[in-house]
Amino acid sequence: MAGSSFGTIFKITTWGESHGKGIGVVIDGCPAGLALSEEDIQIYLDRRKPGQSRYTTQRKETDAVEILSGVFEGKTTGTPISMIVYNQNQKSKDYSDIAGYYRPGHADFTFDAKYGFRDYRGGGRSSGRETIGRVAAGAVAAKFLQQLGITSLTYTTAIGPVAISSFHADEIDKNPFYMPDLSAAQKAEKYLKSCMAEQDSSGGIIECTIKGVPAGIGDPVFEKLDANLAKAIFSIGAVKGFEIGSGFHAAYTKGSENNDNFYMTQTGTVQKTTNHSGGILGGISDGSDIIFRAAIKPTPSIAASQQTVTKSGEEIEISIHGRHDPIIVPRAVVVIEAMAMLTIADALLLNMTAKLESICNFYGKL
Amino acid sequence: MAGSSFGTIFKITTWGESHGKGIGVVIDGCPAGLALSEEDIQIYLDRRKPGQSRYTTQRKETDAVEILSGVFEGKTTGTPISMIVYNQNQKSKDYSDIAGYYRPGHADFTFDAKYGFRDYRGGGRSSGRETIGRVAAGAVAAKFLQQLGITSLTYTTAIGPVAISSFHADEIDKNPFYMPDLSAAQKAEKYLKSCMAEQDSSGGIIECTIKGVPAGIGDPVFEKLDANLAKAIFSIGAVKGFEIGSGFHAAYTKGSENNDNFYMTQTGTVQKTTNHSGGILGGISDGSDIIFRAAIKPTPSIAASQQTVTKSGEEIEISIHGRHDPIIVPRAVVVIEAMAMLTIADALLLNMTAKLESICNFYGKL
Amino acid sequence: MAGSSFGTIFKITTWGESHGKGIGVVIDGCPAGLALSEEDIQIYLDRRKPGQSRYTTQRKETDAVEILSGVFEGKTTGTPISMIVYNQNQKSKDYSDIAGYYRPGHADFTFDAKYGFRDYRGGGRSSGRETIGRVAAGAVAAKFLQQLGITSLTYTTAIGPVAISSFHADEIDKNPFYMPDLSAAQKAEKYLKSCMAEQDSSGGIIECTIKGVPAGIGDPVFEKLDANLAKAIFSIGAVKGFEIGSGFHAAYTKGSENNDNFYMTQTGTVQKTTNHSGGILGGISDGSDIIFRAAIKPTPSIAASQQTVTKSGEEIEISIHGRHDPIIVPRAVVVIEAMAMLTIADALLLNMTAKLESICNFYGKL
Amino acid sequence: MAGSSFGTIFKITTWGESHGKGIGVVIDGCPAGLALSEEDIQIYLDRRKPGQSRYTTQRKETDAVEILSGVFEGKTTGTPISMIVYNQNQKSKDYSDIAGYYRPGHADFTFDAKYGFRDYRGGGRSSGRETIGRVAAGAVAAKFLQQLGITSLTYTTAIGPVAISSFHADEIDKNPFYMPDLSAAQKAEKYLKSCMAEQDSSGGIIECTIKGVPAGIGDPVFEKLDANLAKAIFSIGAVKGFEIGSGFHAAYTKGSENNDNFYMTQTGTVQKTTNHSGGILGGISDGSDIIFRAAIKPTPSIAASQQTVTKSGEEIEISIHGRHDPIIVPRAVVVIEAMAMLTIADALLLNMTAKLESICNFYGKL
Repeated sequence: MAGSSFGTIFKITTWGESHGKGIGVVIDGCPAGLALSEEDIQIYLDRRKPGQSRYTTQRKETDAVEILSGVFEGKTTGTPISMIVYNQNQKSKDYSDIAGYYRPGHADFTFDAKYGFRDYRGGGRSSGRETIGRVAAGAVAAKFLQQLGITSLTYTTAIGPVAISSFHADEIDKNPFYMPDLSAAQKAEKYLKSCMAEQDSSGGIIECTIKGVPAGIGDPVFEKLDANLAKAIFSIGAVKGFEIGSGFHAAYTKGSENNDNFYMTQTGTVQKTTNHSGGILGGISDGSDIIFRAAIKPTPSIAASQQTVTKSGEEIEISIHGRHDPIIVPRAVVVIEAMAMLTIADALLLNMTAKLESICNFYGKL
Repeated sequence: MAGSSFGTIFKITTWGESHGKGIGVVIDGCPAGLALSEEDIQIYLDRRKPGQSRYTTQRKETDAVEILSGVFEGKTTGTPISMIVYNQNQKSKDYSDIAGYYRPGHADFTFDAKYGFRDYRGGGRSSGRETIGRVAAGAVAAKFLQQLGITSLTYTTAIGPVAISSFHADEIDKNPFYMPDLSAAQKAEKYLKSCMAEQDSSGGIIECTIKGVPAGIGDPVFEKLDANLAKAIFSIGAVKGFEIGSGFHAAYTKGSENNDNFYMTQTGTVQKTTNHSGGILGGISDGSDIIFRAAIKPTPSIAASQQTVTKSGEEIEISIHGRHDPIIVPRAVVVIEAMAMLTIADALLLNMTAKLESICNFYGKL
Repeated sequence: MAGSSFGTIFKITTWGESHGKGIGVVIDGCPAGLALSEEDIQIYLDRRKPGQSRYTTQRKETDAVEILSGVFEGKTTGTPISMIVYNQNQKSKDYSDIAGYYRPGHADFTFDAKYGFRDYRGGGRSSGRETIGRVAAGAVAAKFLQQLGITSLTYTTAIGPVAISSFHADEIDKNPFYMPDLSAAQKAEKYLKSCMAEQDSSGGIIECTIKGVPAGIGDPVFEKLDANLAKAIFSIGAVKGFEIGSGFHAAYTKGSENNDNFYMTQTGTVQKTTNHSGGILGGISDGSDIIFRAAIKPTPSIAASQQTVTKSGEEIEISIHGRHDPIIVPRAVVVIEAMAMLTIADALLLNMTAKLESICNFYGKL
Repeated sequence: MAGSSFGTIFKITTWGESHGKGIGVVIDGCPAGLALSEEDIQIYLDRRKPGQSRYTTQRKETDAVEILSGVFEGKTTGTPISMIVYNQNQKSKDYSDIAGYYRPGHADFTFDAKYGFRDYRGGGRSSGRETIGRVAAGAVAAKFLQQLGITSLTYTTAIGPVAISSFHADEIDKNPFYMPDLSAAQKAEKYLKSCMAEQDSSGGIIECTIKGVPAGIGDPVFEKLDANLAKAIFSIGAVKGFEIGSGFHAAYTKGSENNDNFYMTQTGTVQKTTNHSGGILGGISDGSDIIFRAAIKPTPSIAASQQTVTKSGEEIEISIHGRHDPIIVPRAVVVIEAMAMLTIADALLLNMTAKLESICNFYGKL
């Protein structure tokens, strides 16, 4: 089926394999008149670039983006924005050995089950490089949202068993894990070194906070804003869990603890005393910060020995070498932010048609 | 926007408010030739019917379903199946007091923020009664999947802090909480009694296991099978978290622990030694059981005193009386199962077009 | 597949068969705050009601509509509007004979080819009664568009070979064919009488003019406004041709004749000296009236003798008796208008997200 | 809005402007295992290439296609197929003069009305070059349909007032207009010469015949096969009319003339004695050839003098010089074929889920 598109109004379609000619995305439905340059996008792409610390893959990928359409004289025209990142570092021989067997924790087997065969080079379409298109598009969504006063902050709250115990926003960019807690980041470093020594890998947890979303965005039934965020985040490979606001913890609480009471601010707007809802009530934004978390599984490519089978049904023992991330989390931070921005941008545009009064006003008929 | 539809091929559209004339659903895209009666659907609806124990609301709702179209001589015709449940028990006066203020934990405020006003009677469209349409449609999806050998089992793994410590499938239907552990169910009962005594409510966790899904179902990028399950489950009111397989626990593990090794079964199929993946790898089913969990928040309607504001901006103290569920979990079990069945049915139908060879074979051209 | 929905933002889903319990429609995405009553809809439904002249079927169908959801205190709430018309006049015995053979010009054979069997009573889902849902929804779209100053006028320009030669809007409702030319209507009457005497039927042409659509509505590529109108109109059974503005005639002209020159009106807006474009240029409305025509085939149910085959492959001769329209055109007028209104309403809502400046303004960020 | 995608299962998204870096398309949902090379696509693109006769623009455009993803070892993988044609011949100065005024018959004014500004170079997104993406994708759809025994033939039936009066398939490729009638082609040549001498342009009519579509494809209500063909064809710029089978002529006939009688073939299949239906009954294919026609307006860019207005509201007289096609028809033939192939491919894939029996059979459960 056609499963490479996301969004209804602000819609993206991604394409490309790890070792094909390139990776790209088409954004269809971006409003006209947004100032946009390749640099705006490159900033985001650079955040997912490998090789920035010893805790991400040591492959060198410049991942320079090129805008092919939809921007004229520095502004979006309202027509599709096509972007491409050419693949540079295609050492196909690195991957030739995996053509014949199924790596544990990877999609090799399921691709074969679905399609009959697969582009096995570097994971093909299920490679982490697939997220380049998401990040490029997310950069555009973020720039659009910025015009409406909406921003986001995304960071790591746990690396394996090492969780943060304090929050300092200015620490986030100062450690290779994007943790808002220096002490936790130092412990995480030690933990990851031990994983690497054991030829093993680690999982972790990422949190995203979105500020400035006005109350009233989202829909009450199947298109709940949290449902769409859940899908957006779960569509990223390696995500195994998603929660919003009090999340799984809510299951253990009582109504009197979990409900957020309402009060009036000094400027006359309705606010909540707490934010267990995570900024969404009944599928619709409530004006508080939107806060969600995602659980990321450990990198499945490990050098430690594993049992598996070949395409022809032989049981074998393998050890996956190569330049793999010992942890996906640091590079996934910007991917999660990108998917969140895309979801919010689409919901904001869809919301414009909710009220007759606003529509009449829009068309000058009020 | 149009947010009341779910699915691409097996598509449902729900409608109706708690205190309107009725609640209904239209299923569009159900294959022709499926034997279907109102009784098939009533069995599912009865599982969400209130008043079945003292731990659900004591309202009496018969919720009898009527099929209005799409079935001829006992079989589906391939055209839309319209179903309706008339609302019987509309004590509007019970709800007249909530017209003017915003209940904590409910969507009253966000509906007003979005639409400018709302049908305040019984929660209107954001009432739990909205799930009647989902359950009726889910019953049809389940009957369809049964023909393909696919079944599901859904149960409660925690009521507030009381979690199961053993699994006996035959216990599930023997206690009012659908827990597969008699001892836990007894403890849960005590816990709920204490919540009720405090005029408070409880959350909990529901797990769903789906058996028989062949490998190869789902899509590798945005339409990952787990992403669609996440959206389906998160579109149910009160869900605050979703996880699949090892879920949030995966974040704390190492790759060598979390990867599932492959082996060959005696019948020559590929299987996994463990199921941390929860039956899905790279967004595509891997042939193991699909297992996911959802966190349900405590019922927001509590009799204990709460602070809130009125529509006109006055801060008030309220206490919500009426016949509310002290816990949503037992009645949500069948809703979660219904959404899972709808998601799987749609994915199975979408998957039929993945391979040229199968298509040629389908059309007799091979 | 799920083929009973139309529209993206203002989306409708229809259901129901000729001889089932009823016919209905769910409108999802109608903006909140529109004053709406059953009478608003009944006025439209009455225009397609049979038995209004001897040139439509003599069946008596009251077709009273009931609103089941989505309207509260006289206004739409933004949630799905479900409407139903119960079937009253179900003489199933009239149709029992057609269970076994394929009527020429009807969908009996193609339904069997697709689904394996069919609800043969009165044409089942492919009955003209299927249009009740469209007309009910179109009435709501028309009421919405009225708030924005958009209206439409639909009429017959030809009955078989009898074409209009003048246009008087006030004549339209004064003859049973909705022709804007009294003299043509009189000739049409004679022509139809001769058709009926020969146990035969007639086709015709319907034209629709939409006034008040601002310039800028529609999309430049696949979602051209004229492309969506073409689909909307061609989705009505019996339509065999669609043209806009100069239509097929454009093929015979030169660019110098067919181009519409632009000029400035006294109020400073851009206008065209002629309207060969039919109000749409490059898929986007140009501010002129939108004008299109549809060709309607003759009613396929005729009493005259025809050759056909049975489901089991026997060749037979048939003669279809019963209360059939000798011409579909007069009752199709309101159906065409309804589909046009639905298309325009959806396009107007979709257009609100075209420009960054308007969006910022909408959200108070300019 | 996002209006650059077409199709549900076999879905394409096009992007690119006349004078941007290139034009491209992403096909998402093409089944895996189809042998595909750039040459397969180039053959189609070459059919729309300009400069092949003196009756098309004399611009030189090689329009070489490059496949960027979705094909591995010569076969489609089931993942998105991204294709690009770089723009070579970007003489921007040719177009600089049209930046400030609105060309009659073009979308300049409506783009400005919608988006506030436009990429004016060569028509930008509304240029005929936009169809490159459609044709490239149509080539893939055609190759897929070929595997199922489905082929199409597209040709010109009228150039201005010059219509064909005979049909010889082997003539089609022997004249620059793709007319199946040598004598008509000769008259058309004379007619076009006179148009060109007058600095004017001509319209025409294109017909498409699709062979091999099995009975049962398409849907009975909004997704009628003819409705989707109508939209597909009307989404091509310059199309002003669409008709199927007897088309507009049906309006003038009687039921006894227009109905197609059924009979049994010697091989035991149901067939029709005539094909006024154009191969579709009730929105579903009936097993006969699918035949439709499209009316193409004359090229709006003419050197003859025209009145128009500037963006700032000044009335001016213009004369459009440059290398424009004096007639669009010959180059539109392959575009129409491409859109038809895309529509049929999608409908065939969607149809696979119509019957429970086929689905059970597909999944080996029968």
